[in-house]
Amino acid sequence: MKLDTTTTNGKAVHEAEAAAVLPKTMRASVLHGPGKVAVEERPVPEPGPGDVLVRIGSVGICGSDVHYYRHGRIAHYVVREPLILGHEAGGQIVGVGADVDPARVGQRVALEPGVPCRVCRECKSGRYNLCPDVRFFATPPIDGTFAEYVTLAADFAHPIPDSLSDDAAGLIEPLSVAVWACAKAGVGAGSTVLLSGAGPIGLMTVQVASALGATDIIISDVAPARLEAATRFGATRTLDARTENASDAGIEVDAYIDCSGAAPAIAQGITAVRPAGRVVLVGMGADEISIPVGLVQGRELTITGTFRYANTYPTAIALAASGRIDLDGMVTAHYSLDEAETALSQDRDPAAMKVIVRPGEASSR
Amino acid sequence: MKLDTTTTNGKAVHEAEAAAVLPKTMRASVLHGPGKVAVEERPVPEPGPGDVLVRIGSVGICGSDVHYYRHGRIAHYVVREPLILGHEAGGQIVGVGADVDPARVGQRVALEPGVPCRVCRECKSGRYNLCPDVRFFATPPIDGTFAEYVTLAADFAHPIPDSLSDDAAGLIEPLSVAVWACAKAGVGAGSTVLLSGAGPIGLMTVQVASALGATDIIISDVAPARLEAATRFGATRTLDARTENASDAGIEVDAYIDCSGAAPAIAQGITAVRPAGRVVLVGMGADEISIPVGLVQGRELTITGTFRYANTYPTAIALAASGRIDLDGMVTAHYSLDEAETALSQDRDPAAMKVIVRPGEASSR
Amino acid sequence: MKLDTTTTNGKAVHEAEAAAVLPKTMRASVLHGPGKVAVEERPVPEPGPGDVLVRIGSVGICGSDVHYYRHGRIAHYVVREPLILGHEAGGQIVGVGADVDPARVGQRVALEPGVPCRVCRECKSGRYNLCPDVRFFATPPIDGTFAEYVTLAADFAHPIPDSLSDDAAGLIEPLSVAVWACAKAGVGAGSTVLLSGAGPIGLMTVQVASALGATDIIISDVAPARLEAATRFGATRTLDARTENASDAGIEVDAYIDCSGAAPAIAQGITAVRPAGRVVLVGMGADEISIPVGLVQGRELTITGTFRYANTYPTAIALAASGRIDLDGMVTAHYSLDEAETALSQDRDPAAMKVIVRPGEASSR
Amino acid sequence: MKLDTTTTNGKAVHEAEAAAVLPKTMRASVLHGPGKVAVEERPVPEPGPGDVLVRIGSVGICGSDVHYYRHGRIAHYVVREPLILGHEAGGQIVGVGADVDPARVGQRVALEPGVPCRVCRECKSGRYNLCPDVRFFATPPIDGTFAEYVTLAADFAHPIPDSLSDDAAGLIEPLSVAVWACAKAGVGAGSTVLLSGAGPIGLMTVQVASALGATDIIISDVAPARLEAATRFGATRTLDARTENASDAGIEVDAYIDCSGAAPAIAQGITAVRPAGRVVLVGMGADEISIPVGLVQGRELTITGTFRYANTYPTAIALAASGRIDLDGMVTAHYSLDEAETALSQDRDPAAMKVIVRPGEASSR
Repeated sequence: MKLDTTTTNGKAVHEAEAAAVLPKTMRASVLHGPGKVAVEERPVPEPGPGDVLVRIGSVGICGSDVHYYRHGRIAHYVVREPLILGHEAGGQIVGVGADVDPARVGQRVALEPGVPCRVCRECKSGRYNLCPDVRFFATPPIDGTFAEYVTLAADFAHPIPDSLSDDAAGLIEPLSVAVWACAKAGVGAGSTVLLSGAGPIGLMTVQVASALGATDIIISDVAPARLEAATRFGATRTLDARTENASDAGIEVDAYIDCSGAAPAIAQGITAVRPAGRVVLVGMGADEISIPVGLVQGRELTITGTFRYANTYPTAIALAASGRIDLDGMVTAHYSLDEAETALSQDRDPAAMKVIVRPGEASSR
Repeated sequence: MKLDTTTTNGKAVHEAEAAAVLPKTMRASVLHGPGKVAVEERPVPEPGPGDVLVRIGSVGICGSDVHYYRHGRIAHYVVREPLILGHEAGGQIVGVGADVDPARVGQRVALEPGVPCRVCRECKSGRYNLCPDVRFFATPPIDGTFAEYVTLAADFAHPIPDSLSDDAAGLIEPLSVAVWACAKAGVGAGSTVLLSGAGPIGLMTVQVASALGATDIIISDVAPARLEAATRFGATRTLDARTENASDAGIEVDAYIDCSGAAPAIAQGITAVRPAGRVVLVGMGADEISIPVGLVQGRELTITGTFRYANTYPTAIALAASGRIDLDGMVTAHYSLDEAETALSQDRDPAAMKVIVRPGEASSR
Repeated sequence: MKLDTTTTNGKAVHEAEAAAVLPKTMRASVLHGPGKVAVEERPVPEPGPGDVLVRIGSVGICGSDVHYYRHGRIAHYVVREPLILGHEAGGQIVGVGADVDPARVGQRVALEPGVPCRVCRECKSGRYNLCPDVRFFATPPIDGTFAEYVTLAADFAHPIPDSLSDDAAGLIEPLSVAVWACAKAGVGAGSTVLLSGAGPIGLMTVQVASALGATDIIISDVAPARLEAATRFGATRTLDARTENASDAGIEVDAYIDCSGAAPAIAQGITAVRPAGRVVLVGMGADEISIPVGLVQGRELTITGTFRYANTYPTAIALAASGRIDLDGMVTAHYSLDEAETALSQDRDPAAMKVIVRPGEASSR
Repeated sequence: MKLDTTTTNGKAVHEAEAAAVLPKTMRASVLHGPGKVAVEERPVPEPGPGDVLVRIGSVGICGSDVHYYRHGRIAHYVVREPLILGHEAGGQIVGVGADVDPARVGQRVALEPGVPCRVCRECKSGRYNLCPDVRFFATPPIDGTFAEYVTLAADFAHPIPDSLSDDAAGLIEPLSVAVWACAKAGVGAGSTVLLSGAGPIGLMTVQVASALGATDIIISDVAPARLEAATRFGATRTLDARTENASDAGIEVDAYIDCSGAAPAIAQGITAVRPAGRVVLVGMGADEISIPVGLVQGRELTITGTFRYANTYPTAIALAASGRIDLDGMVTAHYSLDEAETALSQDRDPAAMKVIVRPGEASSR
């Protein structure tokens, strides 16, 4: 999608002036250990060569933020130094480093949080999400976006049209996860898809599958409220995982996308896939699970997993801008930076979909 | 998509009885030479092993029907014997041959018109549309569907849900052309597509591209009325080919799909495709055209063409049944079998999109 | 590859005459239950429409034949009626049914053992190996090729050049398994591949990987004699699975192909695959095994399995005819039909690679 | 392929010492206009951050070098300032810039000549050859490798094993063109391929096709000497383009790879491709040529072109190191830097395959 940047450029002049008066310090929400979050004053970062400086407007809270907040680690990623959480961010460019077009100042952007090394085999092969040296917001020791300002490689700050809100800009990140999952699953016109897990990623995936022309979108979860939300977002059938499963329901699908990480759901889901169909594991769970390999062989199923995404931002932004995906409708609460801790605790509410922190806003409660 | 065939099966019993009293003869519209069409009495065909007998409800008129009617040939396909035209057909199964489940009697179906040999390399590789021995309705010397009854291989008579009209069932055929074109063009979420030619196939392709998540769908034609129709069906931008072209408009797209067959449109269209993008030639025109191969090399473009389609009917039916594609909205006129000649002459009206012949109906004028 | 069929056609005339005097009965080796095999007199089968009648020259013994012989079943395939084993067969066409070119009489052929229904979704999509109604030699209740004559669909009797022996013609079948495995694994120029299991399929796969340009072909097995054979057939490195494993050896490969069916080998093998690499499960073992899904996600590995093969015979024949694959060199013993039981028992010898039964030959020992 | 760098690292110590005494100036062969080449003294370049300094051992002469030498331009690339030609280079790392492992000093390397921007859509999608800002040796205004030393991004200086000569290291570049062409053409096990043009790229492509398992490799050229060379390098059949063509010869292939750039050859070649086959245009010729689009549609052929290559160096090096490709056997003459002009003129000899310039050697004649 080509953005009309006329007005944006108009703004740019204004913003460039504004940039001259950027503050020296900013506020950031810092994790000091499991359950310990504090707002602190930090220097506003300087954009290096090729970087932009972004004033953060909105940050969605991801399950990984909550997990770091509660446990101080995810697998072998351990929070050893104070860490700024948050990586689903939207904002506005307020400054540029060397080698970046100054006209970008003023642009509203979605921040792609992981900047790779650009020189390794994975990067040069177009799968930069698998770069071993990627620097990803809020993955130790890289600070995230629960702050008023961050710097980012200019090409990872993706312009958005005015029709998208700051919240939507931030939610381009989880939408990217869903776009990537559907791409791996080969979802297209007339596809039949089974999903497990109607959390935020599951609901995003329902929307993307629908936008891609999938005509049977079946989703399973234990929480009726989530299944209702899934129906609103385009699921054509729901299964209450407490009492129903795909096998008993005689379901056969082109693809199973797991957004639950639950071993029983995965085992069930695989059995519902047609010959030559695909299984995509998105949700994180146990490191090892038992897989019906006899079935994988007999039906020549393909199983793969996703690790973040690559080259999805333009697609996700275009889908959201076209109105095919409703991101704002997934937001269930807003908090200020001072309330980040409260926000990080809201995630257990089954009615909650996406909870947002707005670093630039004063405490709202 | 799984069809609920309960009601259909309910009908089946009734129809099976009806089948017992099928007439011995039927009416068919027969082409005897360029411009010479006559309705004749023919024996109702007997379904052979593996075949079904279908009572035709609706037949869309395709440009190829019109071409045979006017010129008596298309390229090396020459009408040497009297030929029944028509291949975009929907109807109802009223009888079955050996080895076919009698419960299929009563099913409403979309008729896929080309039955391949099933044993050659192309057939066994899944590209049965390229089978050199395919028998395709209304391609000499195979009779088509401007008749009250036809027989067809059971697996090429695809069940449709009750939500689809007979007309829509027939138009699954041109919709398949569009589904195939979009598949070859790699159209998906966030794709940008340029089309030339807003005739029936172009309009179908606009709809399919939109259903697949394409977010920029630009179409070029010389007829303003057709461009208006394209906008109704989902085009996001139109170009009046008499005064505008993609190059001057600064358009860069992921894919160019030609539905015009016009050499200048194709040459123009190719220049609008981004590096590593695709060009799909659907419209038929000159046997040889000049291609900017320097551009094809410098941008590593991929050019291909389509010849009918393979394995698209289930997808096309699912898309139409889901409401993502509006087939009935493309129908601009209905005629009886007696009026087939009038129908074949209506095709030159630029406001006409799809003109339908209903073999079972009495003359309407 | 185009075969020069001049001499073959020359033979054909001769054979056509010979065909006129085909015997009425033939000898076949019949399995009556676990461990019970007897040679019996059976009528020579009549080729139906589209079929050829083949005089069998050579049949390789597969692990599945041995398994049926010992246990009377494989998974849910149970030998309930007397069954003729054998499916790796080469021979000569001696008769044709209706609709088959009589000039084919005299052709030497490799017999592709599984003939699908040709009408289901899998068949029409080019993956006929997944056809639920496939009729496969020596899979109950379909008789196999431990007989002097069999009939087969004409298009599944693939012509071979005179440079290939009857034994080689039969071994096109396991070679097809290897061709399919390498295709699924994406093996190509400069690929690095790890295999487990240096049995006949593993050795075939080593050869195919080498023929496809793989430059690092590492194979693991517990039997030193098999690893030596693997080296002769093109493996660039061997691992004694009793003392070495891929992880400790610091091996990173593009693809892991399991030909062992052993759960520990599979778990080990997966850890050796590079990001975005592939895992192909060929060997049959437990129905369920534990898979490191965390790794599958973190590296976005793709896991799939193989079930027989589709459209591989022309490729496999071309590779063997070009001299890139040595099939005769894999044959370690020959037996007559009377000795089939002995042949079925030889498979436990680790030095044995392929053991052959020649139905047309008198007892040799 | 993993290189054993033990000895190389052993050398590294020695070379690191040597690096301390690098000269300040070096000799380079400079193009001053069509037909005007002079050896000049230039400063030895300094490796910037992420770069290595390479002492050039061997440079192959490419048709593009000859074209610039004769005409001062290729299409829109015009030599406006003095330009150092040469881009098929092998050498040894003698210094490193910031952020590069000093242990790389001493490594023998093949130089991939085009370094892309790493931030654009093409770069991040893995097709960096299509980067609009690529800096490619000897493409104006970027100097090439007809010099004693050059600097290059460290990740574009690919380590080679000791088994490869400096000449072979340089010829990894045209080998990459052939690897890329075969990849685009889908060449694999049992493939049948038709090529036009038995110049260096054509001969490389013959070798790669053979290494990939192609079993029918047919090549057409007007020069009998070149066809003989093609047969030595693995062609299974040759066509004298002055008297034979693929159509008359009844040839049907999976892929046609044009290495001639000649419009009649391309038109002929396309007609030889089977349904669903591929056409790859490698040779450069006219900007526009007439293509049989009716055939492209009727057979659903795919036509594409190549522009350099991406991610091919590791593959090409592995193939050459495995002995599957003979690069030294393609070298027909060696010259010193002083003789560069003579070397650039040798290219018209039909017996010449690859002519080499060795910048470090004294004049040999």
